[in-house]
Amino acid sequence: MLIPQTSTSLADCLRLRRQKLANLIKFPVILWSGTNSPRNFPANPFPFRANSHFLYFAGLPLPNAAIRLEGGKLELFMDDPSPSSTLWHGEMPTRNEIAQKIGADVARPMTELESWIEDAVTLAVQDAATWTQQSQLLNRWVLPQSPPQGIDLDLAKAIASIRLTHDEAALTELRKAAAVTVEAHKVGMAATPQAKLEAEVRAAMEGVIIAHNMTTSYNSIVTVHGEVLHNEHYHHPLQPGDLLLADVGAETEMGWAGDVTRTWPVSGKFSSTQRDIYNVVLAAHDACIAKIQPGVEYEDIHLLAATVIAEGLVELGIFQGNPQYLVEMDAHALFFPHGIGHLLGLDVHDMEDLGDLAGYEEGRKRSDRFGLSYLRLNRPLRPGMLVTIEPGFYQVPAILNDANVRSKYQNVVNWQRLSEFADVRGIRLEDDVLVTAEGSEVLTAALPNDADTIENLVGR
Amino acid sequence: MLIPQTSTSLADCLRLRRQKLANLIKFPVILWSGTNSPRNFPANPFPFRANSHFLYFAGLPLPNAAIRLEGGKLELFMDDPSPSSTLWHGEMPTRNEIAQKIGADVARPMTELESWIEDAVTLAVQDAATWTQQSQLLNRWVLPQSPPQGIDLDLAKAIASIRLTHDEAALTELRKAAAVTVEAHKVGMAATPQAKLEAEVRAAMEGVIIAHNMTTSYNSIVTVHGEVLHNEHYHHPLQPGDLLLADVGAETEMGWAGDVTRTWPVSGKFSSTQRDIYNVVLAAHDACIAKIQPGVEYEDIHLLAATVIAEGLVELGIFQGNPQYLVEMDAHALFFPHGIGHLLGLDVHDMEDLGDLAGYEEGRKRSDRFGLSYLRLNRPLRPGMLVTIEPGFYQVPAILNDANVRSKYQNVVNWQRLSEFADVRGIRLEDDVLVTAEGSEVLTAALPNDADTIENLVGR
Repeated sequence: MLIPQTSTSLADCLRLRRQKLANLIKFPVILWSGTNSPRNFPANPFPFRANSHFLYFAGLPLPNAAIRLEGGKLELFMDDPSPSSTLWHGEMPTRNEIAQKIGADVARPMTELESWIEDAVTLAVQDAATWTQQSQLLNRWVLPQSPPQGIDLDLAKAIASIRLTHDEAALTELRKAAAVTVEAHKVGMAATPQAKLEAEVRAAMEGVIIAHNMTTSYNSIVTVHGEVLHNEHYHHPLQPGDLLLADVGAETEMGWAGDVTRTWPVSGKFSSTQRDIYNVVLAAHDACIAKIQPGVEYEDIHLLAATVIAEGLVELGIFQGNPQYLVEMDAHALFFPHGIGHLLGLDVHDMEDLGDLAGYEEGRKRSDRFGLSYLRLNRPLRPGMLVTIEPGFYQVPAILNDANVRSKYQNVVNWQRLSEFADVRGIRLEDDVLVTAEGSEVLTAALPNDADTIENLVGR
Repeated sequence: MLIPQTSTSLADCLRLRRQKLANLIKFPVILWSGTNSPRNFPANPFPFRANSHFLYFAGLPLPNAAIRLEGGKLELFMDDPSPSSTLWHGEMPTRNEIAQKIGADVARPMTELESWIEDAVTLAVQDAATWTQQSQLLNRWVLPQSPPQGIDLDLAKAIASIRLTHDEAALTELRKAAAVTVEAHKVGMAATPQAKLEAEVRAAMEGVIIAHNMTTSYNSIVTVHGEVLHNEHYHHPLQPGDLLLADVGAETEMGWAGDVTRTWPVSGKFSSTQRDIYNVVLAAHDACIAKIQPGVEYEDIHLLAATVIAEGLVELGIFQGNPQYLVEMDAHALFFPHGIGHLLGLDVHDMEDLGDLAGYEEGRKRSDRFGLSYLRLNRPLRPGMLVTIEPGFYQVPAILNDANVRSKYQNVVNWQRLSEFADVRGIRLEDDVLVTAEGSEVLTAALPNDADTIENLVGR
């Protein structure tokens, strides 16, 4: 475990965060960091990822550790490195050194944790070894698959309310993630003319992230089949007429995420049909960002995107009818079947381990409307919230070839006209947007998104 | 899930493998593939890695699947893709298409598995969701942390005996992994002069692996602190006098692993002390490979490495005394504290999920000798076995500064002379060596290892 040099104010930042928590929660809180998840055998694990709630209040990705928070005090529980771990993993900072760095009031070995669990609330970590330990120590099931229950639910609500808006320390990390994410996309565009496979563009992009000693914040999507929304294959050859959709984000060493999508022509030139649709998606993107300001409902941003897309498709002759009416009947979801975005922070879908607790304002539930059910965020915007804005256009065979869907939307789609856009399988444009007191700030603004500049970045 | 084009003979290869199993095991065998392990929330998992035993007999990395093997017959259990999974993940091959590809006799939905579990034996997968399911269906604990018990132990022994030597289909994959691993190391050497951080060299190397649509077979080690044996940090700057140790391997899409280490000078020129030690390690490496042939005990290969290293260090004046005697007192382990290598196959430490069952000949146990306790393989070699040969020299502070160690080896180490080699913190050289009827074949031979050629590859 490396103690970063930039952490001089880490202790101060963490003190403010736990003071906020102490104002909301009177129970003692214990947060575990988690341990390695094994890959094909225990000694060959996936790279360690600390639990995000732990990271938020402990500041460092310490494996096999826990913190206890009560009344604004921070107690660190972790074991000093054993002699054999020093042999294999080198000299590590001691528990006391880490405690000092993060401003812990007390530091104890992990074995003492069981003496301090009375009345404690917690949140489940993802790895089985640790949630088993949580359940045993607390003598109740703490399962990552289930939403928090009972007194843990109060903790979840409190943490969600705190993590919903970002402090300066978080924003410093989020800007770092955004900058490296932007660079990865630029390098991906520049690498495309020399690449024969999707995998080669992915390699160029992830190479940037690895070179900055960061990791990807989610499994990258780099595909000429953008119509497959979660496409994690990279084996397709790049053909001159293809659009390449890249949804790739960097995560800093301290766990803060970037999340950006661009779509560019493999040849360096959009076809006229590709450019037409690209500009519809871009118009939706720009309209949404222009509308972002405190007090605006995120659902309205989503519906604005739907309306701008519907308007654009009417203009192109793909839809026929009134755009407002098309959105009311969810026709936009034929081509834009997902939500306009989500919260971004320590998780790429921030706090999604708590279900919709962070994404949805208390009392609100997911809609079962075709055009709204995948919306992950439904709250009024507040300064300090970081959201993605990611409109798209996709020709998903599973949607467009569905007999019920075709019959329902028979008269609003000009299927003949649509067939002229066959070279547009999937386009998405995604940026990371901070809500500010004045409106918004696009953290990923350094990455161009207009069609001409994108063509120039791809070059040839 | 992509069905690879190269799998025309996959069904034949799998038939032979399960025939071997049927000759050894009369119980029905059920092997699960496993599911995604969550990273920070369930929808953001680590990349899927199928269980290696499943992969060996099913041939394809199918998530959420199981196979049942009995009397040479293959039954596939998996669910057809749901409509919503088609929306998010695109068109996938059906259960019947996959069954045909792998030569399954029957294909059934996953829900039917519970009707076919009577008297079945199995091996634990690593992810908690699946081993919980295994335990529930079989009504006994099947835990990845524990060695197989009871009737499962017979299965483990049978599979270990089969997977111990590789068939042609496996070797085809292992050669692919070796070739990409070799290319990654060459690119890493060439990238070093432009790199400022370890992370940048790692990025160049892993970029090659990603570009070939492969993954790393373990978390890469790319470090100027080679004396930290499992160093997974990449933040150190590269200084002109440093040696860079890179232990990086590719894993093919079907799960077969490469595992190679090279150590090169950041400046492109070894110092005279670095070159002296490098050549000692190289001599051990070459002597071990020259000795490999069927019937030779792997432990003797390890002891040969120890002897050659001891001889070399006597010649350099670091050790004083008779090399044979130095090895008997484990003095070599002061500088070479790990084993000479391990099995390689679907796992980078092949079948280490079974503990020492595959690595150690029946009836043999780990030695508690300082110089032997980390030896992961202790069997007579047989044609078709693939092993690594990876001697090294390290100045590990935790060993060399230990008062007991220093006093025990006070008279055999010339500590004054040793201090002249302070610029050699860690050197390791590792290749993947196939035991053949005639002797051996180095699958990674295309990667040079002599000091002069290494210097040329680094360039400057």
